[in-house]
Amino acid sequence: MKSVLADTALKIKSMEIRGAGKIAREAASALKSHAESLDTQNSGNFLSEMRTAGDILLKTRPTAVSLPNAVNIILSGMDGSDDAGEIRAGIVRRADSFIERSNSAVRRIGEIGARRISDGDVVLTHCNSQVAIGCILEAHRQGKDIEVFATEVRPRNQGLLTIKSLSDAGIKTSFIVDSAARYFMKDVDIVVIGTDAVTVNGSVVNKIGTSQIALAAHEARTRVMVAAETYKFAPKTLTGELIQIEERDSSEVLSPEIAAAMPNVTVRNPAFDITPAEYIDLIVTEEGAIPPEMAYIIIKDYLGWKIRDFDNER
Amino acid sequence: MKSVLADTALKIKSMEIRGAGKIAREAASALKSHAESLDTQNSGNFLSEMRTAGDILLKTRPTAVSLPNAVNIILSGMDGSDDAGEIRAGIVRRADSFIERSNSAVRRIGEIGARRISDGDVVLTHCNSQVAIGCILEAHRQGKDIEVFATEVRPRNQGLLTIKSLSDAGIKTSFIVDSAARYFMKDVDIVVIGTDAVTVNGSVVNKIGTSQIALAAHEARTRVMVAAETYKFAPKTLTGELIQIEERDSSEVLSPEIAAAMPNVTVRNPAFDITPAEYIDLIVTEEGAIPPEMAYIIIKDYLGWKIRDFDNER
Amino acid sequence: MKSVLADTALKIKSMEIRGAGKIAREAASALKSHAESLDTQNSGNFLSEMRTAGDILLKTRPTAVSLPNAVNIILSGMDGSDDAGEIRAGIVRRADSFIERSNSAVRRIGEIGARRISDGDVVLTHCNSQVAIGCILEAHRQGKDIEVFATEVRPRNQGLLTIKSLSDAGIKTSFIVDSAARYFMKDVDIVVIGTDAVTVNGSVVNKIGTSQIALAAHEARTRVMVAAETYKFAPKTLTGELIQIEERDSSEVLSPEIAAAMPNVTVRNPAFDITPAEYIDLIVTEEGAIPPEMAYIIIKDYLGWKIRDFDNER
Amino acid sequence: MKSVLADTALKIKSMEIRGAGKIAREAASALKSHAESLDTQNSGNFLSEMRTAGDILLKTRPTAVSLPNAVNIILSGMDGSDDAGEIRAGIVRRADSFIERSNSAVRRIGEIGARRISDGDVVLTHCNSQVAIGCILEAHRQGKDIEVFATEVRPRNQGLLTIKSLSDAGIKTSFIVDSAARYFMKDVDIVVIGTDAVTVNGSVVNKIGTSQIALAAHEARTRVMVAAETYKFAPKTLTGELIQIEERDSSEVLSPEIAAAMPNVTVRNPAFDITPAEYIDLIVTEEGAIPPEMAYIIIKDYLGWKIRDFDNER
Amino acid sequence: MKSVLADTALKIKSMEIRGAGKIAREAASALKSHAESLDTQNSGNFLSEMRTAGDILLKTRPTAVSLPNAVNIILSGMDGSDDAGEIRAGIVRRADSFIERSNSAVRRIGEIGARRISDGDVVLTHCNSQVAIGCILEAHRQGKDIEVFATEVRPRNQGLLTIKSLSDAGIKTSFIVDSAARYFMKDVDIVVIGTDAVTVNGSVVNKIGTSQIALAAHEARTRVMVAAETYKFAPKTLTGELIQIEERDSSEVLSPEIAAAMPNVTVRNPAFDITPAEYIDLIVTEEGAIPPEMAYIIIKDYLGWKIRDFDNER
Amino acid sequence: MKSVLADTALKIKSMEIRGAGKIAREAASALKSHAESLDTQNSGNFLSEMRTAGDILLKTRPTAVSLPNAVNIILSGMDGSDDAGEIRAGIVRRADSFIERSNSAVRRIGEIGARRISDGDVVLTHCNSQVAIGCILEAHRQGKDIEVFATEVRPRNQGLLTIKSLSDAGIKTSFIVDSAARYFMKDVDIVVIGTDAVTVNGSVVNKIGTSQIALAAHEARTRVMVAAETYKFAPKTLTGELIQIEERDSSEVLSPEIAAAMPNVTVRNPAFDITPAEYIDLIVTEEGAIPPEMAYIIIKDYLGWKIRDFDNER
Repeated sequence: MKSVLADTALKIKSMEIRGAGKIAREAASALKSHAESLDTQNSGNFLSEMRTAGDILLKTRPTAVSLPNAVNIILSGMDGSDDAGEIRAGIVRRADSFIERSNSAVRRIGEIGARRISDGDVVLTHCNSQVAIGCILEAHRQGKDIEVFATEVRPRNQGLLTIKSLSDAGIKTSFIVDSAARYFMKDVDIVVIGTDAVTVNGSVVNKIGTSQIALAAHEARTRVMVAAETYKFAPKTLTGELIQIEERDSSEVLSPEIAAAMPNVTVRNPAFDITPAEYIDLIVTEEGAIPPEMAYIIIKDYLGWKIRDFDNER
Repeated sequence: MKSVLADTALKIKSMEIRGAGKIAREAASALKSHAESLDTQNSGNFLSEMRTAGDILLKTRPTAVSLPNAVNIILSGMDGSDDAGEIRAGIVRRADSFIERSNSAVRRIGEIGARRISDGDVVLTHCNSQVAIGCILEAHRQGKDIEVFATEVRPRNQGLLTIKSLSDAGIKTSFIVDSAARYFMKDVDIVVIGTDAVTVNGSVVNKIGTSQIALAAHEARTRVMVAAETYKFAPKTLTGELIQIEERDSSEVLSPEIAAAMPNVTVRNPAFDITPAEYIDLIVTEEGAIPPEMAYIIIKDYLGWKIRDFDNER
Repeated sequence: MKSVLADTALKIKSMEIRGAGKIAREAASALKSHAESLDTQNSGNFLSEMRTAGDILLKTRPTAVSLPNAVNIILSGMDGSDDAGEIRAGIVRRADSFIERSNSAVRRIGEIGARRISDGDVVLTHCNSQVAIGCILEAHRQGKDIEVFATEVRPRNQGLLTIKSLSDAGIKTSFIVDSAARYFMKDVDIVVIGTDAVTVNGSVVNKIGTSQIALAAHEARTRVMVAAETYKFAPKTLTGELIQIEERDSSEVLSPEIAAAMPNVTVRNPAFDITPAEYIDLIVTEEGAIPPEMAYIIIKDYLGWKIRDFDNER
Repeated sequence: MKSVLADTALKIKSMEIRGAGKIAREAASALKSHAESLDTQNSGNFLSEMRTAGDILLKTRPTAVSLPNAVNIILSGMDGSDDAGEIRAGIVRRADSFIERSNSAVRRIGEIGARRISDGDVVLTHCNSQVAIGCILEAHRQGKDIEVFATEVRPRNQGLLTIKSLSDAGIKTSFIVDSAARYFMKDVDIVVIGTDAVTVNGSVVNKIGTSQIALAAHEARTRVMVAAETYKFAPKTLTGELIQIEERDSSEVLSPEIAAAMPNVTVRNPAFDITPAEYIDLIVTEEGAIPPEMAYIIIKDYLGWKIRDFDNER
Repeated sequence: MKSVLADTALKIKSMEIRGAGKIAREAASALKSHAESLDTQNSGNFLSEMRTAGDILLKTRPTAVSLPNAVNIILSGMDGSDDAGEIRAGIVRRADSFIERSNSAVRRIGEIGARRISDGDVVLTHCNSQVAIGCILEAHRQGKDIEVFATEVRPRNQGLLTIKSLSDAGIKTSFIVDSAARYFMKDVDIVVIGTDAVTVNGSVVNKIGTSQIALAAHEARTRVMVAAETYKFAPKTLTGELIQIEERDSSEVLSPEIAAAMPNVTVRNPAFDITPAEYIDLIVTEEGAIPPEMAYIIIKDYLGWKIRDFDNER
Repeated sequence: MKSVLADTALKIKSMEIRGAGKIAREAASALKSHAESLDTQNSGNFLSEMRTAGDILLKTRPTAVSLPNAVNIILSGMDGSDDAGEIRAGIVRRADSFIERSNSAVRRIGEIGARRISDGDVVLTHCNSQVAIGCILEAHRQGKDIEVFATEVRPRNQGLLTIKSLSDAGIKTSFIVDSAARYFMKDVDIVVIGTDAVTVNGSVVNKIGTSQIALAAHEARTRVMVAAETYKFAPKTLTGELIQIEERDSSEVLSPEIAAAMPNVTVRNPAFDITPAEYIDLIVTEEGAIPPEMAYIIIKDYLGWKIRDFDNER
């Protein structure tokens, strides 16, 4: 059975398993299998093996956010008992619960987020977040007459996926270049976006361009709603750690042939930017709607992190 | 000689002659030729012929901004004399002066604007404005060590022309997608842009995305400098007229093949947006640096428009 | 004894019992009576009867905020035991405690809020909130030399009640039309208001005009303090639900005779508006002073709501 | 003929002649009559008599704004000649021109202002300004599909006059209490208001409540347009003079019977407030649309005031 | 052993023991000693004696913030048992833990805060906070290339101590007058400051001038990080209490000789000011990084205060 | 007579003549003397000699602002005639007028500025500007009951001079450190300051710390009034030139002995900072009160500069 853990770790590392939600659920599942495969005669051994299993998973993608959240939720609470059988039962129970909650998170967030979209609203979305689009689709499904502006999302044009989903659902959609967000913002009622990570002080890390749109929304008294599964909240920001913004390959922006002719030009291609809490009205999680400042509570109380969890890392 | 006027009018209409500066200078030249071709025996006739000539030119591109400015500067002041010879001389003198000033405007603006860029400054520019880039090139030519961020400028990617000019001049340049402007803005010292039109209350009409960048600049205490020849100031805004924002073809943004598969999607493709005066530090014209609110003075005192000039249009 | 519950439900529905605090306390009292009247032999029956009783009360005023808070506080925790006698004791204890806390809430809030009003302060209040006025009266009672601006509060002129209370207490009071709030705001030290509901992200629903006053206060660096009993915090906003703003009868604003002569005129008469958290310095509850973002904690921890409490409602 | 001047002075003083425009035109007319009635043999006498006539008119309403503007425009330029006949002719010409311009000002402003209102716009207006309503009516007359929110305007309820005019013209109108302006502001495209006086730095003195509405408009990126005849610009603000805000009778706000029962209550009833230039997009005058900062130019160049004109007043 | 308590109380009162951290630790230590010295035969007596001991300490410096936090943490939880021996053990355990945590707080905060300072950052600090400087020194120690602006800090010039520490550590430091903060702010990446007290709504009480600097930071999109041990959070602000701002002796600002010659001049010398939460990005505590609004949670959950703890004080 | 010019030039260069007003008046006087000393037989010679004289003066202090304004006002208009006698008369007339206006400027500004200070106002001033203090003294002289906060003004403590003047005049004055401005700002009605230079877009260059105070004033809706003689407006900013901010000697801030012990510390001592127009309500000049954006008009119309005046300088 050990191979399930090893196999999952490999697949996460090789990015065969990808996407924040999928990574988290597969890690939970692997920990459950691993616990079930272990002998419970010796509690000390059991604990030590499980901790090793957690570490193996964590090392596959050190900067992922959902991975440590899954591992922590499932392995925390192991100290509550001396009986390996009981500990194993707890692990299985938490893994099952985590997987179930994660699986239903997008649907639940869609239901909650849809309530914030009113009949007649004009919505603007940026990038192609499944969970953000879920809120819009659910509002439409409930019969609300809505209209959506969707951006192109340079350099990878994820906006094309977004407008395909919206068009297929029968929603009246306007497609605009990223630069046109402020032009139409005065008539937008609500901006709905996803996120890659939420920090301890409620900043939202999302696709490059998001912070610019949120700023323009704030200028026009347009509300900004972020859809985020709780496993997107970044625990290490509790320790002051900054989210590293990935700079992607220059060829996404400028073809190497053209670039070659311009020796003094460098492409800067950050994939994400950071929107401060003051421009965000609400974050919708599967545990309910919260103000951005409550990110701390999600990390501490719901995800169960304590500052001392990170002590042995240094 | 009448053919020069007709020929110029045709070329402006067919867009063989294009670009705000070129249109203005060619119109001035045509009016001068026309004046020189007319008989000055009968003053009444002369005046009437010249007014007709002005109207012919104005009708070629009713929404152009530089065209009425050129015609007005050259034909205004015709009432100051009863002698057609004198009037003609005035026209010739004003046409020559206008052409000379217009020809030197980009260079003069470059000199003035360059003074606002200091050694060590990080500059950000959007779109491909000859006159804005002129300020940057002149600052570099003076030996100032500067660095430039240039945007891609979707959907027509004029940013490629900009980075080519900057790279050729040997200026260290970073190329970014439009959405990344706020990401880098905190480290930018000055935003330098051109304009298609300046309104009577100092709003600046420029390439879509400009207002978003100016907003992000204001948020980060980064100065915004606009480079604008005086013939870019829109006289009819004095009468309350709003600048019409052209929406360009959807195929610039979305290929028709892809669009065909998405029946509920409409492309909205405004070519320009409007930046309010409160986000602009300074407008540099060939007549000097001015605060945006002085647009009114340029239109009234320098371009010579009076509200009653528009009475007969209604 | 069943009649106490039925009777209370009827009185709440018919609005014989009204006011957020009174509704809550009467509902608590009815649940207590009902529990005492039930047989505790069969635990299953007892639980089921009590749940039915809760539902009966909740249906009387589906949009009230204090009602579900009272019912939830009293009925939550019923699952903690299998013994109906124990459960009943818990219900009685929680009902008594809720009623006691509710009864003392206004006084406690007055004591806390009064500490935020300093000797020499100029206070502005809007509408006629008992709990907000309580803070002012308590500050005056403590001998602080204060002065109050009170608004007229169109269309129902509740300001008259407010100035009567203040005048009777011997407080120097200025009476102004609602439009004059910004005129005097520069000299105001603190705005003190009540609320009809506080949402999960700290927005405050209060009498129409409040958000305008809070905006003007923010512009002038004047602090805004909201007085709110904890049962005013709206639990369903956790599920994304928006507070419905009641539009009251047009005749409050325009007499039907006058309206009849103006066929193209519609009266819009929203009774409340929504003040965002960013304009609020502090909310004073009987559980202490909190920043508006802590509304989430009040709903979750103090009022005891969980997102899944609402699952069976859909 | 002297009696015309005296008669007009008396009527202005007694407020038989009232309204900024009417006062100005009647004063101009009286000066013209007076000039025509005087002997032009002795230039010195003529000048002195006319100056006396100006002073007589100015003293009738020392705080009026349009009165000194009319007198100054008509009497300025008297020093340009030594010949009383010529001077008289100038006075008559300027008086005729002033009256003609004043008479057409409301119509001209309506035409200019209407251009700033687009098809589909939602407009909000406050108080009952003939010239502001003129812009709205003209936009409607041109076939633009617009919708208007009009406030009640406590304490004198001038909003009733406004909605009567709009309803009679067939414009879809919503009537709201003053406190509801921010509630609807997000959906308003343009606020259109009149003014009682514009100061040298572009502040707008208007009906109490205006500044609050302008602030809420700014918060929501809604444009604010002020309609103002040039004789509304306050020349003495050039000398630093502050506009005195009239406090009207308390009985407008609170009936004396009710007030009698509240000895600690004072009514504060300022009739106007001051909106700073930063919340105003544009002022529309009969001389064209201007940014608020151009008030200085209107006072100096159009109305012809110099700081030294006020020297002999001290 | 009673003398340890008395001795500590005396030293705190006489300010022989001073500094928020030291006071707190010495009080904890004294309570521990006192508990160990008491007879545990009679639980009632024990409890009563310990409460008296707590009161004695609290009265020594009624406005100190760390003192009640230490006493409360150590004495809270005494009600959880009836056995004086157990209670004593709890007191000893909590005292030891508090002292250990307090002793390591500055180091832990330094580690957390240092993560928020990036290689290449320009830092600005105000006053001489050991814990704020600790963050800077730790970032430097980690090899990050940073540069610091430090203010003079009139009137007591604590900036001299700050630049001495920074210079000794080999950090490139610029020394500026307090007035120059905004001049350099555009180029500052992060402001790092300490605090004397944090209020329940996240306001930060710190050396006079801090709020001005935070405002200038906000204007330039510069982040503000506050370093604060948890015992700096002010529990009584939960009850609405305002932090009293000490006004220090006038001679710190103006020598008495000079003052004597200016009879109409009064020196106003507030030692602290209050920075609102909206200008603060993050507070770093030894329990992790938090947004300022979480001050409430620190006071309630970490420091263990309940509103009713203060009831008997009135 | 040539010696008067040479002598004045020498005294300006050696700073025997100093202060913006004094330099301007002495330069005007020297030009007048020089014109009177020259032969007017040969107009060409006369013109050329006068231009040389102007250049000699301008070179004495190339960065002074009032000097070029004085020279330009007096020498401009020389081209209007061919007759050296007439030209000389014009020079004498303009010099006399300039000197007279300059001499009365402080008094006139005091009169205008005092009107903006109302009975009961709390005023805050920074640094020791004769013309700003003039406004305050005049308001007091008129019997207005005012109170003034004056800052210390590190590093040279000019605030001591200010409080001496105010105390001697019998004005109730509070003396505060520069850092305390925001602490008291909420209660300040108007900030009154002088300026060293006003730029073409209305930015105000003044003593370091001014921009911080203006920012805090804007945050609290406190008006900022700048007192500035017209010769303080900087003509070269029309050409884009930036005002160079002088950095003064480090010993003003840190004694060399202390500095010697801190090798990694550099003192940064900018003497001035720049307040943007958006934080300034009004500039009071001897030609009247203006909004800051009118700086352009003062430079162009009142001081008589044209962009081409600077062409030959390059």
